[in-house]
Amino acid sequence: MDDRNTELGMDSLGGWRRTHTCADLGPEELGRETCLMGWVQYRRDHGGLIFIDLRDRHGLTQVVFSPEVAPEAHARAHVLRTEFVLAIKGVVRARPDDMVNSKLATGAIEVYVTEFKLLNTAKTPPFPIEDRVDVSENLRLKYRFLDLRRKTMADNLILRSRVSQSVRRYLDELGFLEIETPVLTKSTPEGARDFLVPSRVNQGQFYALPQSPQLFKQLLMCGGMDRYFQIVKCFRDEDLRADRQPEFTQIDIEMSFVDEEQVMGMAEGMIARVLRESLGQELALPIPRMKYEQAMAEYGVDKPDIRFDLKLTDVTEIVRGSEFKLFATAALIKALPVSGGAELSRKEIDDYTEFVKIYGAQGLAWIKIKEDGWQSPIAKFLSDAERAGLTEALNLKPGDIVFFQAGAPDMVNSALGNLRLRLGERFGLIPEGTFAPLWVTDFPLLEWDPEAKRWVAMHHPFTAPKDMDALASDPGSAVARAYDLVLNGTEVGGGSIRIHNPETQQQMFAALGIDAEEAQAKFGFLLDALVFGAPPHGGIAFGLDRLIMLLTGAKSIRDVIAFPKTQKATCLMTEAPSAVENTQLRDLGLRLREKPKE
Amino acid sequence: MDDRNTELGMDSLGGWRRTHTCADLGPEELGRETCLMGWVQYRRDHGGLIFIDLRDRHGLTQVVFSPEVAPEAHARAHVLRTEFVLAIKGVVRARPDDMVNSKLATGAIEVYVTEFKLLNTAKTPPFPIEDRVDVSENLRLKYRFLDLRRKTMADNLILRSRVSQSVRRYLDELGFLEIETPVLTKSTPEGARDFLVPSRVNQGQFYALPQSPQLFKQLLMCGGMDRYFQIVKCFRDEDLRADRQPEFTQIDIEMSFVDEEQVMGMAEGMIARVLRESLGQELALPIPRMKYEQAMAEYGVDKPDIRFDLKLTDVTEIVRGSEFKLFATAALIKALPVSGGAELSRKEIDDYTEFVKIYGAQGLAWIKIKEDGWQSPIAKFLSDAERAGLTEALNLKPGDIVFFQAGAPDMVNSALGNLRLRLGERFGLIPEGTFAPLWVTDFPLLEWDPEAKRWVAMHHPFTAPKDMDALASDPGSAVARAYDLVLNGTEVGGGSIRIHNPETQQQMFAALGIDAEEAQAKFGFLLDALVFGAPPHGGIAFGLDRLIMLLTGAKSIRDVIAFPKTQKATCLMTEAPSAVENTQLRDLGLRLREKPKE
Repeated sequence: MDDRNTELGMDSLGGWRRTHTCADLGPEELGRETCLMGWVQYRRDHGGLIFIDLRDRHGLTQVVFSPEVAPEAHARAHVLRTEFVLAIKGVVRARPDDMVNSKLATGAIEVYVTEFKLLNTAKTPPFPIEDRVDVSENLRLKYRFLDLRRKTMADNLILRSRVSQSVRRYLDELGFLEIETPVLTKSTPEGARDFLVPSRVNQGQFYALPQSPQLFKQLLMCGGMDRYFQIVKCFRDEDLRADRQPEFTQIDIEMSFVDEEQVMGMAEGMIARVLRESLGQELALPIPRMKYEQAMAEYGVDKPDIRFDLKLTDVTEIVRGSEFKLFATAALIKALPVSGGAELSRKEIDDYTEFVKIYGAQGLAWIKIKEDGWQSPIAKFLSDAERAGLTEALNLKPGDIVFFQAGAPDMVNSALGNLRLRLGERFGLIPEGTFAPLWVTDFPLLEWDPEAKRWVAMHHPFTAPKDMDALASDPGSAVARAYDLVLNGTEVGGGSIRIHNPETQQQMFAALGIDAEEAQAKFGFLLDALVFGAPPHGGIAFGLDRLIMLLTGAKSIRDVIAFPKTQKATCLMTEAPSAVENTQLRDLGLRLREKPKE
Repeated sequence: MDDRNTELGMDSLGGWRRTHTCADLGPEELGRETCLMGWVQYRRDHGGLIFIDLRDRHGLTQVVFSPEVAPEAHARAHVLRTEFVLAIKGVVRARPDDMVNSKLATGAIEVYVTEFKLLNTAKTPPFPIEDRVDVSENLRLKYRFLDLRRKTMADNLILRSRVSQSVRRYLDELGFLEIETPVLTKSTPEGARDFLVPSRVNQGQFYALPQSPQLFKQLLMCGGMDRYFQIVKCFRDEDLRADRQPEFTQIDIEMSFVDEEQVMGMAEGMIARVLRESLGQELALPIPRMKYEQAMAEYGVDKPDIRFDLKLTDVTEIVRGSEFKLFATAALIKALPVSGGAELSRKEIDDYTEFVKIYGAQGLAWIKIKEDGWQSPIAKFLSDAERAGLTEALNLKPGDIVFFQAGAPDMVNSALGNLRLRLGERFGLIPEGTFAPLWVTDFPLLEWDPEAKRWVAMHHPFTAPKDMDALASDPGSAVARAYDLVLNGTEVGGGSIRIHNPETQQQMFAALGIDAEEAQAKFGFLLDALVFGAPPHGGIAFGLDRLIMLLTGAKSIRDVIAFPKTQKATCLMTEAPSAVENTQLRDLGLRLREKPKE
């Protein structure tokens, strides 16, 4: 594949300056001299002329080599091929009327070249630099420097940059300080596994890469910094899912002397600003709110996609007495009625039945409401009273389908909640291009970890409870001063008012089974900070990668990151991670364990 | 020391909102109701009233508790102590004329409290929250959350945030994209030692933390991103000097289709903008330029402080024939004449003699020019012709002193170049509060490594040479297309035009003794990128920490970083690095080496 012709040589810039980008020139520039630089997107020879679509990050401009205008340039232009790098000088002319391309910013003009420089040649790329490429993602990742030349990828990164600037301007105007927190820090037990960095100077000891700057931002509030933000890399050494990366970026915010309303109000303004400045969309404020309990009841998940209206209904009381054995014994029975859903084929229903098994369901009961009666494997188990009860509760009418799930509440909710999303897509209920943000509030403070047999913090152990008494008397009923911002069914932000009272923090640790000694060892510096006059404070953090995915409509998180890792946490371009010299390990006081025999 | 009175209890915010910061209220707000929140800086009881200086990040406001205005608040205010956290509501009144403090933004007013909330109590801090603290830096670092409440520290971080925003706005306006590059990446051999991060998923393999995003930014240019910037953490596992940190922050910039003039022009605009927006200073542009050769000849260093005019002179030819043995044999003899320097005491000269030994000097020759002749240990070795030659070349007159250094050029230059800075301070030649930037250009491309017995890149191996022929025929004479920005004698930025031609890059590797196989193994992805149509490109990177040091006048880099490491690379607050669980190491396939017996 080494088809690069090195004999063509390369010209230097020789003091040439670009006057325009490849998206700048319109009819108002007719007759103007211009200097453009970019890559050969297409070449076409026609009628004795050579046409080149010259490409840069901004757009495309058609440049023309004519033997009459510039015989020497025209003669040399025969060597030009795809992805060669050019600088051209020329004159802007109108395209012939029948050649105008109204889809292109520069579609009304073309540039007749007077001189050009060949700045670099190029091998034929392993895939074409086009929007729709039918090529494996692995090849795109190996040649990321070519993949980024594709307009969709470039547009994603351009939008990402624009969003970062919007966020910073917004927060700067509100008096927030951008303060950098350490990357080499201490292992903080926030649930996920830390990446460790061995210390050479302090052999046998390790830094951890931060999972979030949570404690540092609280310490900044204790330090009087008042309003802090940072757009910052965070790290989790987790087994990767499709939408996870070992390093990800967070918009991290903290404020002093505030309650929930002020943090949420600030965040709403930020999201509205981002939508306006990145997509030109106006967001209606305030953003609606929903309590966790309602979200779980009606949507089965704590991050409802409220762009469409399909809802779950608890029918436990209605069908509890049924002859259908599963209903008779289940802790919770929920129904998901879908208007017009009776058209679903048996094959589709079978697929959904497979799908809900991901969430622990054994199967998927359903009833089609036909003009001539109910069609269902379970209808025969239902009494007339139960049928009437369901019809009324679910407002059933001919053409509908109802799905049922019965069993443990977690399973029932997640199976139907996720099925709801599939059905929303299947029935075209989800409007394109709209953004439906939602605050979810009033989360439980704690959740029970059945394996560890203890309470764990649902957000993190620094989240303030709404009511201290509940924490003491009935931990499971304690409500957190926490809020998540959900956008189109994706959690894009989450935060809370923090505990600023050292006694409350100790009680929280106690509720989590962390005794005073352990608390001091792990969080001593935070407890120290709280006793020296910590102000009331709270904040929020947004996942920038996910936010950009939503704004761009990218299907993969890897498409909004310049140099992402694969799901095996490798970089196919640089081949990281890689083996290191033994001397490097010796400097760190480490050796590799022998691999266990297979 | 646990003197915190927990029985006082704490009030919640209860919906109170700040209306002003502690720096906002001036005479135009007289009679206005206000709500302030902050910390008790001082408390003073006088004439039946209680006066509190309330402090936040912005400033101080005097609040007054009066038994006549608000008896209940006054009664409760007796518990208030230093660093307690308050929210107060009150009315703005003029201070009595004789109590006006013109040094304070709020010095004309005071706020008579009507109600207050005690938001938190505080233990007595281990050091007072004042600008001048006579306390060890270690204690300040351990209690960093208190240290940051001090005005100088807060002001440093405020200025740092402002500079970051200025930089971003400037670059955003010029069409630069902010693009994040990976933190978990591949070991890049750029001189310093990498921090390594063991991979759990790929046991036995390691990521490296980036020493700079150099290769990634070049790959972004190959990817058509055109103009890139990032304010980004970089990492070097070096033995730390006073002004080094294991993690530091770089303003990293790269541009396509440019030559030196455009990068330097862009950088000048940025520095001017930063000075204007952070300190209100106007910088005269263009910034002067000096070639490396001249800098070394006249200043002995490649980062001259041109705020003052003391210069080195090569006197080798003048005193080469001297009877002074050292002069007779030295490769280079340089003189540093100081006008009025004859007043230096013997003790001071002895101190300077010790000082230059840091740079490898054996001693320090000197001559004082007195009205009645030359006073010097070496004068007797100099002939009349040599004396006349020195007098003319150095323009000597009574009252001057001349220092000499003779020997290897590196030693001579660094000894006298650094002595020059000391003398500049001693004789008050360095104007305060002025910024004298300077471009240093035309660096050698390569320097000889006498230990490795090979050429190494003076900047990095991706720097373009001015002239390919020199690289082949006489590597030591090759000049780099590199430029450093020096500010008041500190290198704050450096960059170059990069090699964008794969053949040139291969030749460069060859000159450095890196054969094709090794080049492919280490930099294969860069060489790949260059053959697919790399554009001409170049860039620059600024050390943000050092820049902020210069702008704030901070004496230590640790004073411009929120949570710095000590010189032993530890964090005294969080106690990072620290030991980790053995299971964590097992997950990573690592074990600690036994410590060698002492």
